[in-house]
Formats: sequence, structure tokens, C-alpha cells
Amino acid sequence: MAEINVGIIGFGTVGAGTVEVLLQNKEIIGKRAGGNVKIKRIADLDLESDRGIPVDREILTTEAMDVINDPDVHIIVELIGGLGAAKDYILKAMEKGKHVVTANKALLAECGEELHKAADKYRVNLAFEASVGGGIPVIRALREGLSANNVLSIMGILNGTSNYILSGMTEKDLSYEDAVREAIRLGYAEDPPTLDVDGTDAAHKLAILVSIAYGAPVNFAKIYRQGVSELKPEDVRFAREFGYCIKLLAITRNLGERIEARVHPTMVSLNHIMANVKGAYNAVYLEGDFVGPNLYYGLGAGRRPTGSAVVSDIIDLSRKLIEGDHAPLLPFAPANTKREEIQIQPIDELESAYYFRFSALDRPGVLSKIAGILGAHQISISSVIQKGRQVRGSVPVVMLTHEARESNVLKALSLIDGLDVLTDKTMMIRVGEGKGHSNEDEEQ
Amino acid sequence: MAEINVGIIGFGTVGAGTVEVLLQNKEIIGKRAGGNVKIKRIADLDLESDRGIPVDREILTTEAMDVINDPDVHIIVELIGGLGAAKDYILKAMEKGKHVVTANKALLAECGEELHKAADKYRVNLAFEASVGGGIPVIRALREGLSANNVLSIMGILNGTSNYILSGMTEKDLSYEDAVREAIRLGYAEDPPTLDVDGTDAAHKLAILVSIAYGAPVNFAKIYRQGVSELKPEDVRFAREFGYCIKLLAITRNLGERIEARVHPTMVSLNHIMANVKGAYNAVYLEGDFVGPNLYYGLGAGRRPTGSAVVSDIIDLSRKLIEGDHAPLLPFAPANTKREEIQIQPIDELESAYYFRFSALDRPGVLSKIAGILGAHQISISSVIQKGRQVRGSVPVVMLTHEARESNVLKALSLIDGLDVLTDKTMMIRVGEGKGHSNEDEEQ
Repeated sequence: MAEINVGIIGFGTVGAGTVEVLLQNKEIIGKRAGGNVKIKRIADLDLESDRGIPVDREILTTEAMDVINDPDVHIIVELIGGLGAAKDYILKAMEKGKHVVTANKALLAECGEELHKAADKYRVNLAFEASVGGGIPVIRALREGLSANNVLSIMGILNGTSNYILSGMTEKDLSYEDAVREAIRLGYAEDPPTLDVDGTDAAHKLAILVSIAYGAPVNFAKIYRQGVSELKPEDVRFAREFGYCIKLLAITRNLGERIEARVHPTMVSLNHIMANVKGAYNAVYLEGDFVGPNLYYGLGAGRRPTGSAVVSDIIDLSRKLIEGDHAPLLPFAPANTKREEIQIQPIDELESAYYFRFSALDRPGVLSKIAGILGAHQISISSVIQKGRQVRGSVPVVMLTHEARESNVLKALSLIDGLDVLTDKTMMIRVGEGKGHSNEDEEQ
Repeated sequence: MAEINVGIIGFGTVGAGTVEVLLQNKEIIGKRAGGNVKIKRIADLDLESDRGIPVDREILTTEAMDVINDPDVHIIVELIGGLGAAKDYILKAMEKGKHVVTANKALLAECGEELHKAADKYRVNLAFEASVGGGIPVIRALREGLSANNVLSIMGILNGTSNYILSGMTEKDLSYEDAVREAIRLGYAEDPPTLDVDGTDAAHKLAILVSIAYGAPVNFAKIYRQGVSELKPEDVRFAREFGYCIKLLAITRNLGERIEARVHPTMVSLNHIMANVKGAYNAVYLEGDFVGPNLYYGLGAGRRPTGSAVVSDIIDLSRKLIEGDHAPLLPFAPANTKREEIQIQPIDELESAYYFRFSALDRPGVLSKIAGILGAHQISISSVIQKGRQVRGSVPVVMLTHEARESNVLKALSLIDGLDVLTDKTMMIRVGEGKGHSNEDEEQ
């Protein structure tokens, strides 16, 4: 079985997330890469801190050059960040013919052109999915998924820290200062969160998106930047009165000969889907001349989402190295694996909450009969609406249930629909489940 | 310059969209593909209809096999749809060593495994970004962007027609029948829209996503399907009373040994971002074990968005054919092109609507002085809020403007801030512009 050796420089938050993904999902990563992806070496100045991940101490080194010079390492992953040593390490790795994966948005924004030229010169790839939008694969969307389009505009919520702060000001009526303190306390902001709240971080990410969208270098210094620190709670309240919320947006628009590129607090209509991007989430809303408007949304930072993005690049490069020219596109299932059919759970074994609308005659005791049958089938009711209004000659009785088993629901409804006080077949609608869904307890 | 020849089978809606993208965006497509992408032949039984696109009649044929047998054609694009001839054509093209691009969701859902095996056997690629979610690059997101993750769940609004109908029932209180009639009249539904409203189309797309997410074939017939035709307006109203809307969701959840895979009307919390997916839009909300929740949103059908997706696959395959093994990842700008720096418009040339909060003494004539200065700088006011409430010793006067030029705004604010009735620097926030944004006229 083919083996790809990865060398990681930087074992901080993102480095630890990357290692965690590679170890925990080793099996599927191997299938998708077409061979074993192995962590050969990790360099960090701090070899003592416990990252909560089992790593063989022998692969650790304090010398980044040990990793770069290791002849067995195929892919270098630069995760130390910043504009200094990181650039040297990337250039040296390329010089040695190694592909590079990085999450370094500052470096890409300010020296991207130099890195690109080096990659071109040494015929290696520079992959940087993790540099914008954390785990959201927006770089791939722009580079590949929308490659047939002229990009007309991009609006991004690219800094989770400032979005978290603005959400606190909007939803909890906090002052800017209190919202910052809360963000720091809960780990959504560094102390002080300078580059996040002054727009620099979002502008770095915008520079990267702009370069891809328009296929040319951009002068980072010319991107207009304004942060969120001067906003007052009354601005947030007045915005709401006008039907808006305030977001730190990174915006570019294609004007033909030139472009707009700017980061500043912006009023966003409450009707716009971007107004629903709350807390530490990031989103990119863009428009292409053929695709129309597109939105990409997810967690914009954090060890696990960013690790997910870094490893997606490692998998892509590994496939190229292993399969070469004719590397099939990633699955429809990995070709070289036993492809057993996926087993689907029959619908009557589903566990879900349910909505029922019973069409009943307006007589005493109807509700108790219905509730009795439901209870006998382990279906418990969470809310009921019964109003006097007649709909097509009967009174609707409407219920939401707690989680129940579909087979029990079907049995109960069949008994209920046989009652002589029911005038029509009961309408049953499943209630969406899963994390991220609210249920009725969270409503008002 | 390298040249890639594309043969297209099927010149209907999606075929015409594909040709339109290839012709209209020829230049950027060439740069991104690394060479000229040429339409060599197009097959369709109907050579007479006017598709509104200038195509040389000599490249048209009624014989699909003319396209497949043409030795100069590198990539076959199958856009006739359905389970019959389409499969034969794809298999024959692969046999001849040609890469295949298709938008055929029914065929992929019901015979995907057979096509995959053939692609593997003949060492060609089968690309199908356009088969799910129209222009949204969700196949790439799953195949590549999230390849480091175990997919835990997917919830998709995958059929624009039923979403349009449900939106009509929700927002205009239409009956199902009236909403269908409106959708047909406006071109969002076929007449009759059977496969769209009965859940089959969404289930086809779900089958494709499931196969990619879990890396194995799926038996399409076992996916539970329920359509939207039995929903009543009162269900939509009651749902709202409980804090929900009703969406036709395609759902899969990873249960470990087996999965859920089902399509049915589902109650979605109004707080959930999926509740904001309205009209003919599609969206995929998925959760990976590392990336957390991700959302992809855009137009799920239509000539132009689907053409965008088909051509993104053509570009990817062309790059592989031209650049081979070491094909650099797509740009940071195409390497072999003059990379002039992008020109950024200075911020003071921006045209935008603005929010102003003036901190003024509570005296007569203040508003008129402010308005006078704004008017003298071609800044016209669209809304004003002036309430008696004092904030930090002064009265806030808050305005939204129509579009104005930033340089004029800066000049005006500098004059206004010099007035002796102003107690603090004026807060200025730009109002988000661009299509998709609402402005104050659309509120309420």
C-alpha cells in the first residue's frame, strides 16, 4: 500500500487539530487518499505542553529544518503563522520539491505572489483551504466549483471573533466592551483581540479570495479596513428599527477595469440570509455571472474545523502523489475498497418528533380518546392547539409530540383514524431533528 | 496552445446553458483550464429550435455516436438525461477512453455503481457536479473539501420546484393547487410536476450525496419518499404557530452500521438557517465530525447555474489532460498569464447608502442645518428617526440615505461635525448593497 509522509511545522491549536484529524480518521483518510497518510515528523519550539493527543515523542523536534530536510517527507504543512520564519520554511520546502499546505492567511495575503511564483518554479502545489473560513471549503468552491464564472461580487463574514462580539451587542444589548470581555472569557477572542476587531484578519482573508476570484495579485495595503470597536449599542438598536443588523463584512465587487475591496461594519437587511449568520460562524455570499448567488456557511475557526480543512488539502495532494495523472476524482466511493451496499434503516424504525393534525367532530371527549391511544403507544405530547374554528366541517386538533418511534405512530394513527369522531385522515409531518435545529422548547 | 475538444450530447436546457457558458466566458475558461476549450460537436434530435446561442451548424448532428466516435473529442458531456440511451452513450464513451461529464441524477442514483466501475476499468473520470444542487458546488465540497470528515448527517432542500410551491403556501397562503399553478405559470415547475413534487427528484439527489458521503453504493429503491401534495394551508399555518415552517427535506444520518435516508415534508424551526431557504433556492446543510455544521446555498436548477456546474467539471478535466500529473491547483491566478496587479478603487470613490447617527443638542433648527449640508453634497435622505430620548446628554438624530458618493459623505460629515450644536463625532456606517440585499423600501 502506498504511503505518504507528512511533516508538520507548528504544533499549536491548528497543528494539534490537524494531527487529531489524521489520527482519529486515519482509516477513511487512507481510503480517500488512496494510500496511508502518515505523520512522519512534527516541529515545534514547545515539546512539553500536553495537546491531549497521543503522539510518539520520537517524531517531535524543535528544528523545523529537520522536517523539511527529511528525505522521506512528501508534504510540508506550515502551521506556525505569521510573516517571518513561515515564509522561509515554505520556500525551502518548495525548493526541495515538496508540496506545501498552509493555513497562513497573513502570509498569503501579503506575500502570496512570491509563494505562488516559487510553487510554479519548482512545480509543486501550494494548498491553503484552511486560510479562509476555517472548515468551510470556500477556496475550493472559488478555485474549482465556480471556475466557469466571472465573479461579480463577494460579501464575507470572515472573522468569527468580531461576528461573535456583534452578535452579543445585537442579541444581548451588550456594550462593545462587555461583548469583548464575554468573547475573551468564552475563548472566542484573544486578549486583546486587536487583529480580529480592527478588520486586519478579515482583510487578509479578503485579499486571498480576491486573488483567486480575479486571478491576479492584489496589493493588501490598498484594501480599506475599518473595525468594529466604535460601534455603540444605540447603533445596533437604530439599525434594527430600520430593519437591519450590523455585520463586519469583507466586500469585493467587480467593476470591470478595477474592483472594490473593503472591510468595514455594514448594515445588512434582516431579510438577507447573511443576517442569520450569528455567533462565531463565518459565511461567504458570492455572485457569479452564471451561477447567480451562492452562500457557504460554517465554523470559521477552531482546532477541529481548521484541522478538517488542512487535512482535506493533505488528502488531495496525497492522491495526486499516489495516483498521478489519472487519479480518478474522489469517490463515488473509493474504487479500491470493498464496496458493500449501504444499509438503510427502514422508515418505521425512525425516531422523530411528529406534528399531527386531527380532523375531529367538535364533541366532548375527543381529545382524551386521541391522547389515550397515543399514550398507549409511548407517544407523548409536547404541545396542543385546539381552537373552536371549523375547517371543512370539523375542528382541527393539532399536536407536536416528543420523540417517538414511527412504527408506533403508524399504529396509533391507524387506530385514531378508525374512531367515529374523526372526519378525515390525520395529517402527520415529521419534525426536523438534529443538532442546530430548535425544538418547541426553544421557541419564545 | 493546448486545445481540448468537448463533445456535447443533448442540446436542451442544460446543453444550451453549457454551450452559453463555454462561449461567453471562453477567455477565463481557457486561462483556468490551461488551454483552449473548444466545442467540437453537439448532438441532438432537434436541430431546428433556436436556443438563442450562435452555434456553427456544421458541428451539429442528430447522431450521438458521431460525437462519441470523433477521435478528436476528449471529453463527452451527456445532457440528455433519463435511464435509457444516456447510459449506453456514457459507457461507450468510457470504452473509448474519454472522460465523461454528466448532469444525469436519475442515472447516477439508479445505476451509479455500474458507471463507476466502468470509469475505473477504463481509467477515465466521471464528473457530475451538476447532478445535485444546480450551480452549488456541493459534490466537490463533499468529495474534496470535507474529505477528512466522517459525515454525520445531511439535510438538503434539493428540489427547487417543491420549495417554490411550499414558499407560495407559506408566504402567500396559497393552497397546494394554486401554488402549483403559479409555479407552472412562472416556469418553476413542469406541467405536471410529478417527479418534483412526489419526492423522486430529491431522492435521486440524496442517493448521490449518500454514496459520496459514505463511500459505497446505495439501493435507490430503499430510500423512503413522500411528496408535498397532501399538505394543506392549515398545516402551514399551524406549523408557524408552533414556530416552524414546512420544507421538503432529503435527510440522511449516519447511524454507524446503517444510515437513515428519507425524503418527506419536514417541520423546520424558524430559527434554523434552513428556514431561510426560500423560493427556487436549494441548500445542503451537513455536519461532519470535525468540520461541524456547514451550509451550501444557491440556485438549484436553471440553464445558467447548471451550465456553470457542467463547465466547472469540463475545466477540471481539461486541466488534468493538459497539465497532467503536476497540474498545479487552480489559481492563485493562472501561472501562465500576465499577472498584473488588480486595481482597487479607492474607498472615497465608493457609491453606497449610508447610516448616520448625529449626536446633537436638543435645539430647534438642528435637523435643518444637517439636512442642508447633506443636500449641498448630493446626499439625499431616505429615512430619519428623531426621538426625544437623551443618550449621554444629547439627542441622537439617525438617518439612512440613498446612494451617495463616499467623498461627498466625508466632506459633509466634516462640516456637520464642526457645527456647534453637535456634541460628538458622527457615527457613519455603510449600508450593504448589491443584489440580494434588501434596502429600507423592501422592509415590512
